[in-house]
Amino acid sequence: MKYYPKIELDIEKAAEFLGLPPSRLQELVEKKKLQENWDEYNNIYRFEGHVSNIENGTVLIDRFGSFELVRGFPKIKRAMLLEPAVKKHFAEIDHVVVEEKMNGYNVRVIDYNNKLIAFTRSGHVCPYSTERIQKFLKRDFFRDYPDIIVYGEMVGPDNPYVQKYVYGIESLEFFVFDMRYRNSGESLPIHKRKELAEEYAFDQVNLFGKFSIEEAPGKITDIIKQLGKKGHEGVIIKDPDMVLQPMKYTCSESNCSDLQHAFKFYNETGRDFLFSRVVREGFQSYEWQENEEDFQKRCLRLGESLLSPMKKTIAQVQSGQRISDDFKIRVGDKETIRKFRSYLQRFGLHVVFEIHEKKGDEYIINIRKVNKSTNDKTFAMLEGQLWS
Amino acid sequence: MKYYPKIELDIEKAAEFLGLPPSRLQELVEKKKLQENWDEYNNIYRFEGHVSNIENGTVLIDRFGSFELVRGFPKIKRAMLLEPAVKKHFAEIDHVVVEEKMNGYNVRVIDYNNKLIAFTRSGHVCPYSTERIQKFLKRDFFRDYPDIIVYGEMVGPDNPYVQKYVYGIESLEFFVFDMRYRNSGESLPIHKRKELAEEYAFDQVNLFGKFSIEEAPGKITDIIKQLGKKGHEGVIIKDPDMVLQPMKYTCSESNCSDLQHAFKFYNETGRDFLFSRVVREGFQSYEWQENEEDFQKRCLRLGESLLSPMKKTIAQVQSGQRISDDFKIRVGDKETIRKFRSYLQRFGLHVVFEIHEKKGDEYIINIRKVNKSTNDKTFAMLEGQLWS
Repeated sequence: MKYYPKIELDIEKAAEFLGLPPSRLQELVEKKKLQENWDEYNNIYRFEGHVSNIENGTVLIDRFGSFELVRGFPKIKRAMLLEPAVKKHFAEIDHVVVEEKMNGYNVRVIDYNNKLIAFTRSGHVCPYSTERIQKFLKRDFFRDYPDIIVYGEMVGPDNPYVQKYVYGIESLEFFVFDMRYRNSGESLPIHKRKELAEEYAFDQVNLFGKFSIEEAPGKITDIIKQLGKKGHEGVIIKDPDMVLQPMKYTCSESNCSDLQHAFKFYNETGRDFLFSRVVREGFQSYEWQENEEDFQKRCLRLGESLLSPMKKTIAQVQSGQRISDDFKIRVGDKETIRKFRSYLQRFGLHVVFEIHEKKGDEYIINIRKVNKSTNDKTFAMLEGQLWS
Repeated sequence: MKYYPKIELDIEKAAEFLGLPPSRLQELVEKKKLQENWDEYNNIYRFEGHVSNIENGTVLIDRFGSFELVRGFPKIKRAMLLEPAVKKHFAEIDHVVVEEKMNGYNVRVIDYNNKLIAFTRSGHVCPYSTERIQKFLKRDFFRDYPDIIVYGEMVGPDNPYVQKYVYGIESLEFFVFDMRYRNSGESLPIHKRKELAEEYAFDQVNLFGKFSIEEAPGKITDIIKQLGKKGHEGVIIKDPDMVLQPMKYTCSESNCSDLQHAFKFYNETGRDFLFSRVVREGFQSYEWQENEEDFQKRCLRLGESLLSPMKKTIAQVQSGQRISDDFKIRVGDKETIRKFRSYLQRFGLHVVFEIHEKKGDEYIINIRKVNKSTNDKTFAMLEGQLWS
């Protein structure tokens, strides 16, 4: 193992930088609401959980006594009924821009010690995303605009978090959807972000158009129906100037597909995860004034997305196999494999890595994450134990 | 208001009776895990929540310094996969008795100060159930068998908790399903309970038969399919001697009907309530090895039970009405109306009572319970607020 020089966080200075009383910062450290990353990132801290005025996942970088902040990406609120939500939320402006919400994982990118690094939503430096991002973004942008942080979605099948084949992506790609000023946290207006991203040849999420508030609900409904058929996730509706907060709205098919994946591991599925997805279906069906046939299709889709993965899981455990979440990653440097395994293990995950093949100059690694709770519960039921 | 003489609980004596250290009982009182009932029942206490060795809802009666215990009805565990569950759970015995699990509310009955009183599952003295129980059970049983507590289900449409029309009951009836010795908490063997109940002309739950362990899963599956078609709830599978704990198993139709009722008030529905009902469907569908057509019917039934009540709720709130849980009760004594209203209000419920009509010498009272959380949430969504 390498040795990584670690400097103790200077509470006084860090608190001054954050505008917090030192006693408050000390308390956050003691309550583990400010935690450090690992290895070469051990001078990078992340805020975890609810801390007033600091978004969850915000990162504090200690550059030997001088500090930098990388704000967490704010949670985007959801429209349940599209039309009233658009009209109320964007009442002050004339037009909205509609962009695609891709189904991958959210990543923030900065330049750190002459290399790009990628943070996950929670503020962890993900070794896999960090290796990959070097391929996707040019560093010159970050030299030219050191005050801008790039936010985007990592999308595609070679993906440790959300594997999606619906985008026609072979391995993994990165789509920029936001750029924000480091200090203020303010977003660049959409046209400015698009211009910059184009200039540096960054891929960006699909932009469907700019619509008047009046026409937006109808247009978005059409877009959502088309996206749903393709298995895509949904849209983000934005103020072109990025002053008002964006809003998300998603497809029933994608909603059910999330449930389908989650219920393979039914005993690990969050109760809130299930509840919120059921409720979305009710509101969308109401707003769309579906006829009986379309409503029945929706009910069937919802029911199947819950029961069919469960049945497969039970059958698989009955047949003597353990169920697991299987995915793959693709890396250029074997060192990334070691780092990523150690990264997942720190989260307490049971993972098995297996180098599958070499493709060009890259390694494809199959990863198996065993879902102990669902395995154990299913086995117990098959053995005749009672639920509770 | 009447004055009801109240004696302070003698912690020393009560603790001795319960076999607890006095300091432990004192702690339970302070933590409100031992609470008193109201009015003329203010010398009756109930245990709330987890207290070691004491079932939730257990009642302690203070008869001026001498004590009595009415044990809570133990939670009956559920079979998820019927065949392995029956075979494992009843491995020591040859036969099981299968009785109907009726869909109403669980009540315990004792004789207290020359009147029968009815406790709900939680150990509250319910004024409505208490008035009604006088009609259903003869007091002579309780004089002849002072050491036996009677457990049964209050079933029918005139019901503040679970309104069911599927049993062909006009108002409300009481069906005995268990009798237990006060001191030991042991149940009478089924044949003995049936004999006693018949002797005193108590109604009892339906007994489907006594089956060998080998044939039981098949027989019960047939019974469940029949009960499902009629909208009944399910069965309880019992050791004839009532030494082993009973086990419950229920119908998909009843499961979905519970969801259908709950999702009218979707924002009040417990996340666990939803999750556990979804999971039951998955296991039953697996065990029954359903063909594609039956599986689709089940998925559709589940999906509709979630979405159709939600859609109705949204439409109702949109039309300017407030949604509410409406039910009725039927009483002989107007004083019961006052007592029952005050009882519900003590739980913090918003209820509106309206005397609807007189039928014979009884009053029918319509009760409207307003579900503020679902009303408010639905209204907010219709106004265009975002989910979160």
